[in-house]
Amino acid sequence: MKIILGSQSPRRKELMAGLDIPFRVVNIHADESYPLDLRGGDIPQYIAQLKAQAYPEPLAADEVLITADTIVWLDGQVLGKPKDEADACRMLRQLSGKTHQVFTGVCVKTVAGIVECFVEKTDVTFRELTDEEIETYVNKYHPLDKAGAYGVQEWIGYVAVTHLNGSYFNVMGFPIDKIYQVLKKYDF
Amino acid sequence: MKIILGSQSPRRKELMAGLDIPFRVVNIHADESYPLDLRGGDIPQYIAQLKAQAYPEPLAADEVLITADTIVWLDGQVLGKPKDEADACRMLRQLSGKTHQVFTGVCVKTVAGIVECFVEKTDVTFRELTDEEIETYVNKYHPLDKAGAYGVQEWIGYVAVTHLNGSYFNVMGFPIDKIYQVLKKYDF
Repeated sequence: MKIILGSQSPRRKELMAGLDIPFRVVNIHADESYPLDLRGGDIPQYIAQLKAQAYPEPLAADEVLITADTIVWLDGQVLGKPKDEADACRMLRQLSGKTHQVFTGVCVKTVAGIVECFVEKTDVTFRELTDEEIETYVNKYHPLDKAGAYGVQEWIGYVAVTHLNGSYFNVMGFPIDKIYQVLKKYDF
Repeated sequence: MKIILGSQSPRRKELMAGLDIPFRVVNIHADESYPLDLRGGDIPQYIAQLKAQAYPEPLAADEVLITADTIVWLDGQVLGKPKDEADACRMLRQLSGKTHQVFTGVCVKTVAGIVECFVEKTDVTFRELTDEEIETYVNKYHPLDKAGAYGVQEWIGYVAVTHLNGSYFNVMGFPIDKIYQVLKKYDF
């Protein structure tokens, strides 16, 4: 089977490459709006399905499409991608000194439709950050493409994250162990 | 202060480099034998101290030495570095389907002596691995330099680790967040 990764995220590409299975990357443009009564992990699971449905061509019989979406969930609120650097600083001040959840929804689709759609949760604990640390990170790393305004594999992940409960790779990009298990289960 | 990393581990060098603080690397040869009544985290903490004491030159007033040691602890037994590839396969069969502990001891030493010595624990859960997966990994990645015969940042970490409780970077090399906190606390 030919694996297609429907994500431009460099972290997801790196994780997929680590499986030592050939795959190609496509860019999917989906309207990512979701019903406002969805909460927590239901949100990225819903959006991962929208992305799978937005794939522009019919899949061939030997193709498997993987789509994913990640949100940061703090005190019952979604932190998406920051609008600008001030917004990134505001998000990091909110995350400082607290435990939040990273939810990633993943869909696996074949010519038969969506064969698996699941969500993975990781609890991430940040220590208290100083304003100087937050500004140093945002000014140097510009985390505007990242949900919650941080990359766990960057400086901020090294100095701020004191505890994880769940999958690290889920926080970095997506739950690569579960994706591997699905590919194996279907013999893809 | 000038930071000296007393470890040749590429993963520890990568983590230190991520702090964006200059440092240099030295190779320390220490006799790593320890009292047989030590258990769990006491073992790498003891060995990290042996490494700090084995640094061959007196430290200058503006130098800070960081040493570390990591063990894998499974069902009350230490898994060290495998002797050969058959031993690596044996260790991975032991880890398969179980939760083990990764303990890293870290010592921070100045001209005044050891100023901090601590241990960090992470629980790591492996799913059941097939013999084929274990052999594929060992034959391709030759994990003979790694405690417990695995690198969490390699293929085996992607496909086998289903859950972490604690610090991911502790499993990868050492608890970089705690090291950063110590360097900050002393204004090094």
